[in-house]
Amino acid sequence: MTVRSNICAMAGYVPGEQLNDPDITKLNTNENPYPPSPRVFEAIRTALTPNSLRKYPQPLGDTFRKTAGRVLNVDPDGILIGNGSDDILTILTRTFVPEGGLIASPIPSYILYRSLAEIQGAQFLSVRFSADWRTLDSWAAQANLTFLPNPNSPSGTIVDPETVTRLAKALAPAPLVLDEAYADFTSWSGLELLSSTPNLIITRTLSKSYSLAGIRFGFAIAAPELVRELAKVKDSYNCDVLSLAAATAAVEDQDYFHEVRAKIIATRVRMTQELTELGFDVLPSHANFVWCRRSDRPVKPIYEELKRRKILVRYMNYAAGPLGAPEGAYDGLRISVGTDAEIDTLLSALKAIL
Amino acid sequence: MTVRSNICAMAGYVPGEQLNDPDITKLNTNENPYPPSPRVFEAIRTALTPNSLRKYPQPLGDTFRKTAGRVLNVDPDGILIGNGSDDILTILTRTFVPEGGLIASPIPSYILYRSLAEIQGAQFLSVRFSADWRTLDSWAAQANLTFLPNPNSPSGTIVDPETVTRLAKALAPAPLVLDEAYADFTSWSGLELLSSTPNLIITRTLSKSYSLAGIRFGFAIAAPELVRELAKVKDSYNCDVLSLAAATAAVEDQDYFHEVRAKIIATRVRMTQELTELGFDVLPSHANFVWCRRSDRPVKPIYEELKRRKILVRYMNYAAGPLGAPEGAYDGLRISVGTDAEIDTLLSALKAIL
Repeated sequence: MTVRSNICAMAGYVPGEQLNDPDITKLNTNENPYPPSPRVFEAIRTALTPNSLRKYPQPLGDTFRKTAGRVLNVDPDGILIGNGSDDILTILTRTFVPEGGLIASPIPSYILYRSLAEIQGAQFLSVRFSADWRTLDSWAAQANLTFLPNPNSPSGTIVDPETVTRLAKALAPAPLVLDEAYADFTSWSGLELLSSTPNLIITRTLSKSYSLAGIRFGFAIAAPELVRELAKVKDSYNCDVLSLAAATAAVEDQDYFHEVRAKIIATRVRMTQELTELGFDVLPSHANFVWCRRSDRPVKPIYEELKRRKILVRYMNYAAGPLGAPEGAYDGLRISVGTDAEIDTLLSALKAIL
Repeated sequence: MTVRSNICAMAGYVPGEQLNDPDITKLNTNENPYPPSPRVFEAIRTALTPNSLRKYPQPLGDTFRKTAGRVLNVDPDGILIGNGSDDILTILTRTFVPEGGLIASPIPSYILYRSLAEIQGAQFLSVRFSADWRTLDSWAAQANLTFLPNPNSPSGTIVDPETVTRLAKALAPAPLVLDEAYADFTSWSGLELLSSTPNLIITRTLSKSYSLAGIRFGFAIAAPELVRELAKVKDSYNCDVLSLAAATAAVEDQDYFHEVRAKIIATRVRMTQELTELGFDVLPSHANFVWCRRSDRPVKPIYEELKRRKILVRYMNYAAGPLGAPEGAYDGLRISVGTDAEIDTLLSALKAIL
């Protein structure tokens, strides 16, 4: 059949391995090791009625928007709901990027941005981080859409508000998307810049900090007049009734959220220290994972040996692809912050391997 | 901001009204009036565990694919899962239609096809049905993608296997999408043509015949090698863990499905007869709605008077838009098949109004 050539040519985004073996210590896709808020289960059970299943859900998710607007102190009309933040990134691409257009993002970073460019038939430009990961070498003012994950993956590093503002200004009137999938694990968010930076768009997910990867829910925060345009591009009913109920309950339970967040940050501090003691170069992380490299030996065999021991971390190699990376950051292990017990299992295994 | 001009220019698809008032008799968006299978509730409750919510779901929905493959007697690798069949239609558009390309579909039909063309920056061509709704006037062999809803909405009519085969051959190698959202309410499906018609793609939804509009689940059936290309375009995790569990359980319970289907068809027969007796021109329907017009008076005031009485049907006017329609079919009421009690309420109100 007559599939578009850009689709035929692309390899397709490959997500992290999802193995079903319950014995596996899974530290490869940044899932939250703690369960979602008890209120989430309650809300799903309450929503589980014949009428809610057989009828179409709220097209724009007004109940969620009202709740999230209150919790985050933003205008509910400035919130766009998504079937995971991947759905939001797709909607943004289709809204801003024509075929033959240009998407820019830093490197190394979330590999999906390139896939989105390939699907749209657009060009993709990667911009290197400086060696300290705090600034970016140069930017493409002609990009139709620029993604900046902050905190970044796989590095776990952040750029500061001044750098974000400067970048947004340089790109205006084209949009800068601050992909804040991991922002709940650090100390600042672009939300504080929104009112003064009209071309800033913020995306969030409930997959990480709210332990809801399974229900697929993300959202964007932007100017209400832009959200009205984005809503034309999304599928009419892109979030289902149970996910909407779960997401609303999760965001409402801020006490639980802060409790889980504090545990993850405490474990992150400990694992950073112990991995460093084991000889890894660990970047100070602002996310729920750490990026580990070694100067004394390759890390791929460590990933493989861990996998043999049923411990799954993510081995990422940016030199193998067409991507490029900051000097010296070509491959490494991205290890999700698990429970303390999971991290003990990992550390014991590493001690045995090294 | 620099939103693409095709997005700015479009009005956006407007779904049927979703009113929250529980007193409303809702016959406007073809939801199923009966609850989903009891097994669906059971499956969702079973899937509702901390681990299933906090972890990513199956990217390709292998459990659903295996089950649906067995029930429909198709290759599981030839099934693509979607977040509602709207997601599938979007994926098909992005896979086959370049910017400036062409989407074709009959008229009057599902209005979303035009919106998909607008979002993609593509042209849209509508092809008229013949006066008996059984054939189509002419087709655009140069279309990148052709949608044929069968049964069609709002008419509820079907075209026969010979017409579909002829059309697919005329369009080859470009794809013909048979949108079978309502096929469970009629007597034949394009599934029987799949092996002999390589450019045929079939789409299905669980929103209508399986009473699951609220959970957003649809799928495509096509050649496995095409499904591999479509999977590159979909979001990695486009269906959530609870929807997947619900969809699998629903498709598994074929006894319940046949029971509900028989009730809806019986009510359709009765309402067609009684609406005809009230002076409506009712097309023989193969779906879970009927298309009603009158030669003696305009139907819009009837829609409005019904709405005042808290009975919601869909008034569709194809003359008002840029669409065009077969001779004499310019506007009408599309009334969903409700429970017998709901249809009694409708018929009493109509007797009072007329």
